[in-house]
Amino acid sequence: MTARLIDGKTAAEAVRAGVAAEVARLSAAHGLVPGLAVVLVGDDPASAAYVRSKGKQTVAAGMRSFEHRLPATATQDEVLSVVAQLNADPSVHGILVQLPVPKQIDPHAVILAIDPMKDVDGLHPLSAGLLASGLPGLVPCTPLGCLYMAKTVHASLAGMEAVVVGRSNLVGKPVAQLLLRENATVTIAHSQTRDLPAVCRRADLLVAAVGKPGFIRGDWIKPGATVIDVGINRVPTADGKGRLTGDVAFEEAVQVAGAVTPVPGGVGLMTVAFLLVNTVRAACAAAGLPAPKI
Amino acid sequence: MTARLIDGKTAAEAVRAGVAAEVARLSAAHGLVPGLAVVLVGDDPASAAYVRSKGKQTVAAGMRSFEHRLPATATQDEVLSVVAQLNADPSVHGILVQLPVPKQIDPHAVILAIDPMKDVDGLHPLSAGLLASGLPGLVPCTPLGCLYMAKTVHASLAGMEAVVVGRSNLVGKPVAQLLLRENATVTIAHSQTRDLPAVCRRADLLVAAVGKPGFIRGDWIKPGATVIDVGINRVPTADGKGRLTGDVAFEEAVQVAGAVTPVPGGVGLMTVAFLLVNTVRAACAAAGLPAPKI
Repeated sequence: MTARLIDGKTAAEAVRAGVAAEVARLSAAHGLVPGLAVVLVGDDPASAAYVRSKGKQTVAAGMRSFEHRLPATATQDEVLSVVAQLNADPSVHGILVQLPVPKQIDPHAVILAIDPMKDVDGLHPLSAGLLASGLPGLVPCTPLGCLYMAKTVHASLAGMEAVVVGRSNLVGKPVAQLLLRENATVTIAHSQTRDLPAVCRRADLLVAAVGKPGFIRGDWIKPGATVIDVGINRVPTADGKGRLTGDVAFEEAVQVAGAVTPVPGGVGLMTVAFLLVNTVRAACAAAGLPAPKI
Repeated sequence: MTARLIDGKTAAEAVRAGVAAEVARLSAAHGLVPGLAVVLVGDDPASAAYVRSKGKQTVAAGMRSFEHRLPATATQDEVLSVVAQLNADPSVHGILVQLPVPKQIDPHAVILAIDPMKDVDGLHPLSAGLLASGLPGLVPCTPLGCLYMAKTVHASLAGMEAVVVGRSNLVGKPVAQLLLRENATVTIAHSQTRDLPAVCRRADLLVAAVGKPGFIRGDWIKPGATVIDVGINRVPTADGKGRLTGDVAFEEAVQVAGAVTPVPGGVGLMTVAFLLVNTVRAACAAAGLPAPKI
């Protein structure tokens, strides 16, 4: 058996096309141009590359992109002051502070300072609580991407046994909430789970978000299961460049699973696409318009 | 095999004694007397009885009790105005609006109006998000009672297979978060779970919160498991008075389980005890004191 590959490139393109169409409609019908502001503190090259990519995709979707760069020596007050200015700016509908931030800055304090209406990363505790309470709010982008990919395989997740391995605030916990909202039976497993292979083998839908390369083995996967691999781990190679690999032992998984996301080319590509979706959602909410159908 | 009974009366008395000792210490050392305000709209006799009981237990623990009664015809603005007044009152550390409220009042709007620092029912989305994010905050009382009872049987819940049946914002979802925080492997099951008996049989710790009398049968329980029954259902009797029964078929469960909470006399008694705990926690947070050890 060879698993179907869930292609992140195709999926992300479809989401971005939906965003662009919705942005065009909002602009024409309401004169509303969604705007996303990204704050980058310091000069980490990987972070800078992410920020550039976000800005490019934002503009390509017809939206406004704002970049605020602060030096690596910026104080917490300086960062909070930029956030306050963006909170007050009506042309900014989404605010994202690129993490990690330099160590003199408390990331919790920064996240708490973002207006929850503009919290497109979905990291504010109020956003987490709205999700947990089944109320409308902004949901973290990577979990939205996981759900989208699972739904390219299954029209409905209702009644499915879903197992989420990992319980981070950024991925594991919000993915579990989203799957519960879709009426799956959801198990959250983690480093202290006793027989993790057996728990994973129960899953019709397995989401791996542990940050350990090749951690989930082929014989942990129920034959025919759908596997969503959130891990993006850089492992060393002979040429010294390293390569990206997921949390799932991919070559083993494709022999057992029904469908699986590759790494690279899987979930990772969905995150920025859903950042754009969240910005459009935030813009509609701020303008008192109904939630967009994307 | 006959299960050990987890006695709610003894457990609740122990919690209340801890609260009274802490209140005495706070009063002596800091001149701080925690205060709990309960708002009752309308004259439902069951709600009025709950409110009386809460007031009595609050005073018995050495705390201040405030009762605000509004007629069944009160408008939403009138209720929100009482909440605003209590938010601003420094002698009030906890605010509880007795639910359900009459139908002209939106309970969500009322809950959102309560200062999250005084949200001793733990129902504000910010409280739910702080719990979901692993940050300090106020947690709903019944889930705290469930956890306390489970811990009278198990010193540690780490690695245990826990199954929560029911996913309400008031019980199921926060119980799942608390069990995850205790490092259990947590499954949330519900009405759309495919083979609920099989899922329940996986549980070392089974929490039933579905609101259906005798729904969980003896052969759904893993031999030796700990069963926490959150249901409080009134079922008809020949004499017309009715009697209270849980979500678990108790007579069957005691033959299989290792430990089980009775109904009545179980979880129900814990809720008010933890309302007092939450009020003391809120008072300490408001005063800038460390969290009390209760």
